[in-house]
Amino acid sequence: MAASTYEQLEQEFHRLHVLRGAASLLRWDQAVMMPRGSIGVRGEQLAALEKECHAILSTPRVSRLIDRAQANAQSLEDWQLANLNEMRRQRDHAIATPGSLVARLANASALAEAACVEARRSNRFADLCPHLEEVVGLVREKAYLLGQHLSLDPYDALLDEFSPGLTTKEIDSLFKVLGLRLPSLIREAIELQGPEPLPLLPDGETVSVAQQRALAMEIMQAMGFSFERGRLDESNQPLTEGDPGDLRVTCRFNLAHPLRSVYDALHETGHAMYDLGLPPEWAAQPVGRNRGLVLEESQSLILSTLIGHGRPFIDYLKPLLDKHYGVSGPAWEVNNIYRHLTQVQRGLIRVDADELTQHVHLAIRYELEKDLLSGDLKVRDLPQAWNEAMQDRLGVTPANDVEGCMQDMHWPAGDFGFFPAYGVGSLTAMQLWETLRTERDSVDEEIAAGDFSGVVSWLRDNVHGLAASLSVPELIIKATDKPLSAAPALRYLDAKYLESFEG
Amino acid sequence: MAASTYEQLEQEFHRLHVLRGAASLLRWDQAVMMPRGSIGVRGEQLAALEKECHAILSTPRVSRLIDRAQANAQSLEDWQLANLNEMRRQRDHAIATPGSLVARLANASALAEAACVEARRSNRFADLCPHLEEVVGLVREKAYLLGQHLSLDPYDALLDEFSPGLTTKEIDSLFKVLGLRLPSLIREAIELQGPEPLPLLPDGETVSVAQQRALAMEIMQAMGFSFERGRLDESNQPLTEGDPGDLRVTCRFNLAHPLRSVYDALHETGHAMYDLGLPPEWAAQPVGRNRGLVLEESQSLILSTLIGHGRPFIDYLKPLLDKHYGVSGPAWEVNNIYRHLTQVQRGLIRVDADELTQHVHLAIRYELEKDLLSGDLKVRDLPQAWNEAMQDRLGVTPANDVEGCMQDMHWPAGDFGFFPAYGVGSLTAMQLWETLRTERDSVDEEIAAGDFSGVVSWLRDNVHGLAASLSVPELIIKATDKPLSAAPALRYLDAKYLESFEG
Repeated sequence: MAASTYEQLEQEFHRLHVLRGAASLLRWDQAVMMPRGSIGVRGEQLAALEKECHAILSTPRVSRLIDRAQANAQSLEDWQLANLNEMRRQRDHAIATPGSLVARLANASALAEAACVEARRSNRFADLCPHLEEVVGLVREKAYLLGQHLSLDPYDALLDEFSPGLTTKEIDSLFKVLGLRLPSLIREAIELQGPEPLPLLPDGETVSVAQQRALAMEIMQAMGFSFERGRLDESNQPLTEGDPGDLRVTCRFNLAHPLRSVYDALHETGHAMYDLGLPPEWAAQPVGRNRGLVLEESQSLILSTLIGHGRPFIDYLKPLLDKHYGVSGPAWEVNNIYRHLTQVQRGLIRVDADELTQHVHLAIRYELEKDLLSGDLKVRDLPQAWNEAMQDRLGVTPANDVEGCMQDMHWPAGDFGFFPAYGVGSLTAMQLWETLRTERDSVDEEIAAGDFSGVVSWLRDNVHGLAASLSVPELIIKATDKPLSAAPALRYLDAKYLESFEG
Repeated sequence: MAASTYEQLEQEFHRLHVLRGAASLLRWDQAVMMPRGSIGVRGEQLAALEKECHAILSTPRVSRLIDRAQANAQSLEDWQLANLNEMRRQRDHAIATPGSLVARLANASALAEAACVEARRSNRFADLCPHLEEVVGLVREKAYLLGQHLSLDPYDALLDEFSPGLTTKEIDSLFKVLGLRLPSLIREAIELQGPEPLPLLPDGETVSVAQQRALAMEIMQAMGFSFERGRLDESNQPLTEGDPGDLRVTCRFNLAHPLRSVYDALHETGHAMYDLGLPPEWAAQPVGRNRGLVLEESQSLILSTLIGHGRPFIDYLKPLLDKHYGVSGPAWEVNNIYRHLTQVQRGLIRVDADELTQHVHLAIRYELEKDLLSGDLKVRDLPQAWNEAMQDRLGVTPANDVEGCMQDMHWPAGDFGFFPAYGVGSLTAMQLWETLRTERDSVDEEIAAGDFSGVVSWLRDNVHGLAASLSVPELIIKATDKPLSAAPALRYLDAKYLESFEG
C-alpha cells in the first residue's frame, strides 16, 4: 500500500524530470542554434513547460501522496526516504509561490535582462533602473512568501532553493574568516609578483574554431566526457544543458584568444562530469539530481582552476597546444602560461578576476544583494554603493556602470542568492581538493600525464555519487570529515601565492 | 457566456499548439544535432509531450467545453465556427484511440523501423516480417476503432486524420482515370526520348557543404524564406519542423551530387512557405494549421517539380550554379539539366522516379496497403505481391527486397494512408498550377528572372491563407473553381512530355 503510493510519486517525478529535460534542450537550442527572431516562440514553449512542471508539483494529488507515503515511511529504503524528502522540498518551494507571481517574475526579468543589454550599450543605468526595481520588488515578494512557508528568513529561503542547508549565518561566518586574511594575502601576493615583468598574453595568434573545438574535445574526452551522448558547441555564454544521457556543453571560441575556450570547456566539463557521475539507479528522481549551485560551482572550479591553473595541467596542455594550435614563442611557454593564469590584479570585472580577488567581488555582491532585498539599499542608489564598495575593498573605482554594477546579468535575471553560492562553492572546492590530495598523493603526476581517472573517481565516490541524498553541509562533512570552513582555502591560497611562489 | 466557453477552448488549444511546437523542435534536434547514443532520452521526452497533448484533447473538460460552445454556436464568427469544427475533429481522433494503443503502436513502429534498417543491410525481409506484422495488426486495430467512432470505413478513418475529406472512393476514381492513360503516356514519352542520347549526370564534381548550403539559402531567400526566423541544416532525410516563427528546414548535402540539395531545399521550402503563409490571426489555433498531407505535398511539388523541373527555373538556376559551384561542361548546360530532370524511366525506386512513373509507384503502394489492412494480403506474402505488381505495371522486377518492398520506411513506421495522399497531392499540385498559370500569364518570365513573389502570393491567397478552414475537397474547389480531377494532370503531362517535347 505504502509502496504503491510511493511508486505513484516516483512516476509523477519521473514525468517532471523528462519535461525538465525537454525544457533544458530548448534552452540549449536557444543559445546555440535558434534564429534571433524566434525568441517569442521559444519563450512561449519554455513558459508552457515551466507551467506544466509547476502544475505537477503543486497539484493536491501529489501533496496527498507525499503525506501518505510519509505516514508509511517505515516501509521505505533509505534512498527512498531521501527521495521523499527531496520531493517534499520541491513541492514546498512550488506551492509557496503562486503561479501568477512566478509568471510576473519571469516576465519582469525577461524585460530587465533585455533592458540591461541595452543599458550596457548606452551606458545608462537609468534605463535599467525601473526594470530592476520591478524585479527586486517581485523577488522580495517571493522571498517573503517562501520564508513564511518554510519558516526561514526571506534571504535564507532564496538560498534554500538552489543550495539546501546553506544559511546567511553560515555564509557570514565563512566570509568573515576569509575577509580577515584576504586583504593582506592580496597585498603580499601582488608585492611578491611585483618585481617580475608582467606575463605575456598567450593570445594574439588566430586559431580557428575547428582547432579550438578539437583541442577542447580531446581534453574533455581525457576527463571522461563521452561524445556518444553529448556535444560541444559555441554560444555567447558557456553553459551545460541537457540530460546525463544527452549533455550539451558550450564554449566561446574567440579566434584571437584561443586559450579561453580551453578554460570555458574545463569549467563546463566540471558541471558535465557531475551530472555524468550521478547514480544511474536514481536517475529521473529528485534524490538523483545534483546538489545545486554550491556543489556545481565546486566541481567546475576543481577542474578549471584548482587543476586547470596548476603546473601539472599546463605541462599536460603544452604538447596539446603544439598539436592543435601550432602556436609557439615565449607567450606559450609553460612558465608564462602559469604566470598569466595566476597573476593577481585588483580589477573591476568579476569574471576576469584571479583566485584571490574574486572572493572580494563575490562578497561585495553578497552584501549589496542582501541590502537590496531588505530594502536598506534602494535600486537607484546601487551604482554609488557599488562604486564605494569597490574603492573601499579593492581600491579601484569603475569609470562607468558598464564596468560597475551592470557587468553581471544575475540581478536583472532575478537570480539572488547565486553570488554567495559561488563564493561558498569556491571554498568547498578548496576543501574537497585538500582532502583529495591527501588521499591521492600521486595526483600531480597523474594530471601531468593526462590521466584524470583518479580525480574523477574520487569526485564520483565522494560527491557525484551522493547526488541530492544529503544537504550541502552534510555532504561536505561526509566527503572531507569536517564541516566546511575557510581554513583549507586559506592554506591553499597561502601556499600557492606566497610560500611556493616562483617568479 | 458562450464566448467565455469558447475562449477557454482557445486557451487549451493554444497550449496544445505550444507543446507540439516544442516536440517538433526536439524531433528536428534528433535529426540534426543529437548524439547517436541519446535516442533513449529523446524518446522519453517525445513520448511525455505526446502524452501531454493527448491528455489535453481527451480530457472530459475539453469535451464538455466543445459541447457547450457548440450549443451557443450562433454567437461565434465564421472562423471561430471552423475552429470549433477542427477542435472537435482533433478531439474525436484522440478519444477514439486509447492511450495504451497509441503507446503500443509507437513502440512497435520504433522497433519495426530499427528492424527495417537492419533488414535492408542484410537484405532479409524475414527479419522485418514479424515486426511489420505487429505494426499492421495495431494499425488495423486503430483503423477499426477510429472508423467505428467516426462512422467511416477503417481505411477512410486513417485517411481522415491527415487528409480530412479524402475517401477511398474519391482516390479510386482519380487513380482509375489516371491509370487509363498513364501506361500509353509513359510508353509514348519513352519512345519520343528514346532516339536521343541519354542526358549526362550533372554530378561528379565535388561541391562543399558550405557551397551547397549557400546556393540553397539564396534560392530559399528568393522564395521568401526568412533566415531571421528559420534555419537550413543537414540531415539524413530532408524535413521541415518547428513553428512558423522558428522554421527548421533540412537537406541532404551529397558532395558528389550537388544538384540534389537544390531539389531537397525546394521541396522543403514548399512545406515551409505553406506554414509561413498561414494567417497570423489564427496562429496557435486548430483552424490556423495547414490542411494536412495532400495540400502539404501539393505545395512541395509545385516548387520542386512543376517549377523546379521547368526550363524557366533552370534558366534562373544556371548563373547561380556558376556563382556558387563554379561547375562547367556539357553536363551543366541548361538543356542537359532539363533533359536529366525530365528523363522518363521504368525504374524500381519511388523516390528516384520521374513525374510520370511515380504515379504507378504510388498506385501500387495504395492497393497493397489497402489489402494489408483488410487482411486480403498477409505481410509474409508482401514481397511476392510487390514484385508481381511491379512487373505487371512497370515491366521491371526488383532483384531483392531492398529495392523492392523494403525501400520505404512508411509501413514499418505505421504510416498508412500516406502514399495515396502523395498521389492525390500530386494531382492537386497540377490542378492548382493550371489555374495559377491561367490567372498569371507572366509566371514563366517571373521565374526565369528569379522573381517568385507572384507564385507565392497566388498560393498564399488561394491555399496557405485558408489554413484548415475548409476540407481538402472544398479548398481545391475554392482555389480552382472545380472539383479535383485527373484532367489537369493529364493535360500538363501530355503537354510537357509529348506535345512540347524537344530533344
